[in-house]
Amino acid sequence: MIPSNAKKVFTGVIFDVYQWPQEMFDGSIETFEMLKRRTSTDVIATQNGKILLQVQEQPAKPIFLSFPGGQAEDAEDSLVGAKRELLEETGCTSNDWHLFSEVNAISKIDWFVYTYIARDCTIVQDQQLDAGERITIRWVTLDELIDLVDQQKFTQIEPSFRMDLVRAKYHPPARQELEKKIFGL
Amino acid sequence: MIPSNAKKVFTGVIFDVYQWPQEMFDGSIETFEMLKRRTSTDVIATQNGKILLQVQEQPAKPIFLSFPGGQAEDAEDSLVGAKRELLEETGCTSNDWHLFSEVNAISKIDWFVYTYIARDCTIVQDQQLDAGERITIRWVTLDELIDLVDQQKFTQIEPSFRMDLVRAKYHPPARQELEKKIFGL
Repeated sequence: MIPSNAKKVFTGVIFDVYQWPQEMFDGSIETFEMLKRRTSTDVIATQNGKILLQVQEQPAKPIFLSFPGGQAEDAEDSLVGAKRELLEETGCTSNDWHLFSEVNAISKIDWFVYTYIARDCTIVQDQQLDAGERITIRWVTLDELIDLVDQQKFTQIEPSFRMDLVRAKYHPPARQELEKKIFGL
Repeated sequence: MIPSNAKKVFTGVIFDVYQWPQEMFDGSIETFEMLKRRTSTDVIATQNGKILLQVQEQPAKPIFLSFPGGQAEDAEDSLVGAKRELLEETGCTSNDWHLFSEVNAISKIDWFVYTYIARDCTIVQDQQLDAGERITIRWVTLDELIDLVDQQKFTQIEPSFRMDLVRAKYHPPARQELEKKIFGL
């Protein structure tokens, strides 16, 4: 999405800024700008028909709900990153991983969010949290997850998946399809 | 959301970058980063029970659907910006404006999107488009708008409103409430 003639004009901690000269419809030239952000992962971790949610605290932010996941490390494959984040944040592993979706959600930002399903998770170690994380784990049913999203109590979620969950709330065939996709039954 | 001790470290065309030293839970300090982007407006313009959609072309982008709207000019009030964008992009005015929602949609970006309703629009002049815009106007029913969003054909839309439209598709009381909010009947 960022054209090959774009130049990186700023390197940040999270965001890098790119600019390029873009020809307009009347032949004039304007400077266009886009951001690049490292790939992120979200993990839908399941166990006994429930889904893992994180009640998360970070410095300078109100408490929020999230899935396990985070930013990929340098050149890390998204699935490797998803497994690493799940283990660090929750102490869980799984032998049954599936890609749920791959979305570039936000206009003007080159930022891919990969959502993975990790079925039948087992806890194998303690959490290994960064100095900027406090995470409590909560297991919820699919219907509880759907309600949290529909009631806007869980908003830090990729917009298309958020839409899937709201659709599942009010449209039984969509709920059935989503349940099958997540739990594989 | 950007703390008062943050410093602007980059000034872009669309995005400005801010950084600040943030104390972690263990007392260590890390550099935190957020972006600032000018306020944007979206306009739900109505006429005879229909809603105005724009089929829009911009350089270096595939054709996409949008509401009228755009980025506020320096220090411009959001309603003033919404009226200006509606007039420039569609040639329409309205005497009946209502705030639909005010949302800071994206984590790590200080960016407010104001959605306004402009009822009973009338066309008073020709479009006055920038060199980077090609816009065709299309009037759709609320149900057509809902279907375009539900089928992911209209994705450049503020995520909470997108959720409202999907809910309206499958939950008749939500549809009724949304229709009343938009058309005021």
